[in-house]
Amino acid sequence: MKSLAVLHASQVVTLGGPKRPRVGTEMCELTIVRDGGMLIRDGKITSVAPSDQIEKNASNAEIVDAGGRIVLPGFVDAHTHLVFAGNRLDDFERRTRGESYEQIARAGGGIWSTVQKTRASSDADLLKQAKIHADWFLKCGTTTVEAKSGYGLTLEDELKILRVMRQLNEETPLEIVPTFLGAHAVPRETDAAEYIKLVIEEMLSRIAREKLAEFCDVFCERGYFDIEQSRRILTVARQFGLKLRIHADQLTNSGGAQLAAELKTTTADHLEKTNGQGIAAMKSAGVQPVLLPGSVHALGLSDFPRGREMVEAGLAIVIATDFNPGSSPTPSMPMILSLACTQMKLSPAEAITAGTINAAYSLNRGNKIGSLEPGKFANFSIFNCEDYRELAYWFGIPQTHSVYVRGRRAG
Amino acid sequence: MKSLAVLHASQVVTLGGPKRPRVGTEMCELTIVRDGGMLIRDGKITSVAPSDQIEKNASNAEIVDAGGRIVLPGFVDAHTHLVFAGNRLDDFERRTRGESYEQIARAGGGIWSTVQKTRASSDADLLKQAKIHADWFLKCGTTTVEAKSGYGLTLEDELKILRVMRQLNEETPLEIVPTFLGAHAVPRETDAAEYIKLVIEEMLSRIAREKLAEFCDVFCERGYFDIEQSRRILTVARQFGLKLRIHADQLTNSGGAQLAAELKTTTADHLEKTNGQGIAAMKSAGVQPVLLPGSVHALGLSDFPRGREMVEAGLAIVIATDFNPGSSPTPSMPMILSLACTQMKLSPAEAITAGTINAAYSLNRGNKIGSLEPGKFANFSIFNCEDYRELAYWFGIPQTHSVYVRGRRAG
Repeated sequence: MKSLAVLHASQVVTLGGPKRPRVGTEMCELTIVRDGGMLIRDGKITSVAPSDQIEKNASNAEIVDAGGRIVLPGFVDAHTHLVFAGNRLDDFERRTRGESYEQIARAGGGIWSTVQKTRASSDADLLKQAKIHADWFLKCGTTTVEAKSGYGLTLEDELKILRVMRQLNEETPLEIVPTFLGAHAVPRETDAAEYIKLVIEEMLSRIAREKLAEFCDVFCERGYFDIEQSRRILTVARQFGLKLRIHADQLTNSGGAQLAAELKTTTADHLEKTNGQGIAAMKSAGVQPVLLPGSVHALGLSDFPRGREMVEAGLAIVIATDFNPGSSPTPSMPMILSLACTQMKLSPAEAITAGTINAAYSLNRGNKIGSLEPGKFANFSIFNCEDYRELAYWFGIPQTHSVYVRGRRAG
Repeated sequence: MKSLAVLHASQVVTLGGPKRPRVGTEMCELTIVRDGGMLIRDGKITSVAPSDQIEKNASNAEIVDAGGRIVLPGFVDAHTHLVFAGNRLDDFERRTRGESYEQIARAGGGIWSTVQKTRASSDADLLKQAKIHADWFLKCGTTTVEAKSGYGLTLEDELKILRVMRQLNEETPLEIVPTFLGAHAVPRETDAAEYIKLVIEEMLSRIAREKLAEFCDVFCERGYFDIEQSRRILTVARQFGLKLRIHADQLTNSGGAQLAAELKTTTADHLEKTNGQGIAAMKSAGVQPVLLPGSVHALGLSDFPRGREMVEAGLAIVIATDFNPGSSPTPSMPMILSLACTQMKLSPAEAITAGTINAAYSLNRGNKIGSLEPGKFANFSIFNCEDYRELAYWFGIPQTHSVYVRGRRAG
């Protein structure tokens, strides 16, 4: 593969630094090269330096002129529900009328409606819609996404979703990190005890055997899976070699953050209702919080998770879209930057760290992606602005100029 | 000019209806033609009908195949501060650190910093930056914007800004409706009494004579212009033939809505702090509220104006971006639809009505734009979705496919 030389970036925002997630004031240290450039060979970065130095070594390289724009690592979106059928427009409209979650579910909406549509979809149709979603992510500057199953809730349908993810990973430039979320809800045709048995005794072994997921996640919440049930599922998942994530304390403070700490899960996600004790427990256990302000916005709520407090407590926070049809219909990490800065009072630098290098570590890929440093994959985005803070400042408009995955143009 | 035939739209959302702003349940009646089309001649709409009927009369027309996408009137953005120099990234970053407006102003930020940069800019530089903004608006599906002066605050600088707007109107497809907002702040080099004298005795007559503005606006707020000062300025503006708008009750409930009612201004804008009495007063006087949820979001606040209550009180509400560098750096009406639906509990249909036909009436153009009906200008946007509700539902991503102004491709 030919070499590539990126030249004349107003800022190459490298996120270079220690080989671990960033905490505290490290989250503000983006390590920026002004009038910067980057040399790429065989899909990997070989050097990042001022543009004139790169130019000297670029004699055989194809040139990408950033033209005074900023260059960032591709965003790493560490929490999405990427594969589903249909949308939830009716739920959305009902919510504007003030209908509650329960009213919407009774009217045929909620997670269950997406499960029904997803079960009824063929592999080909699911893949077709997932490719549209993948294209959206790339257009927003994201190059890696974690993607959860969980709209199947039978062995065959969960396998179908995870296989669609594998195919998506092979057929598009977007890198997919698959997570098994069989414990997303108890399906209507069975009860909790029976379903948990299915998850533990059949789904996990099959998914582990086929290597269809890297992580296992559970929706630990009142009315979904309680602390004890979540502990059982995650403990078995770990025995099957899966790493752990958990939906914790989104709607109620049910002790999800503490369970994450007890199990030393890689991440605890949502955390809208987590208090100081939960924050301290996650800190002691080295759990990375994944904060999802998009769902707070889209549900019309105002209880954003305590991101500022978590940064100050020294947690290596991550921000993500929570892309899903019910509570967060956005694939846009720049939109999440806006919400993180305006509503959670992260600085633009902290928000970018949380959406790149920290997110990469939370997906067990901190050594390969999430920063622009020699040896890492050349996953990067060029945006139509001169200062990285503009990504969070101007909101609702596409600023993406172009996106590259492993040195190839991908969007 | 050749004829144009738009065919195969999943929905032509016409906003057709009575020849006046829509109120109450009328705001939900979008008048949609499914599998719709539109015939256009000399930049004006001649018919809107099912696609097969349009096709029969389209023999000499250039075809625009909407390909199953939705077609809407171009958005009409009735409150922007489009012409300014620079940005306010430093203020934005300071705000994430929890600094107050006063602290930011002391550090050299706030309106005054934009006034200094705008005064220091040449006409050519201002126009260049304004053209970038105009392009953003078009890319978001907006075809008409109201634009306020107010970052000059001297006779010459206010004239400069208004002339840039005129040139922008001539040189880009975006239609600009100019508003004189000399009373945006009292400039530091003078005092309120002296500045108001300048506005009343020099600026207004000159601007009226040169026909540089259609409307006059005042920032009626504690620390800016009080009720008595606002009344004086607006009363004189009306004598010079200008129509009236007013920034009312944004930060405090200072009686701005009541003043709007007393003066029968065309609009009262912001209204975050307006109470039931203010709403009743505006209703009696026929004032159109212009609600600006983008600034509430960007300032990290949660006191969205009472849009739901205003709709139910029978007011012909408008929603707009408030595009400006300090408190609302977004040109995106789809983003405003998302905020209006999730935070102000407007239905998607109400929000679209508020951002098209009602906005057009608030700019004295209800007979020419804001809906897709025979005789109106062919200002329309095609979006990459099948259902109009998707515009408010998916957020943070560009869904614009293409934009037309008077029948010509503009974005």
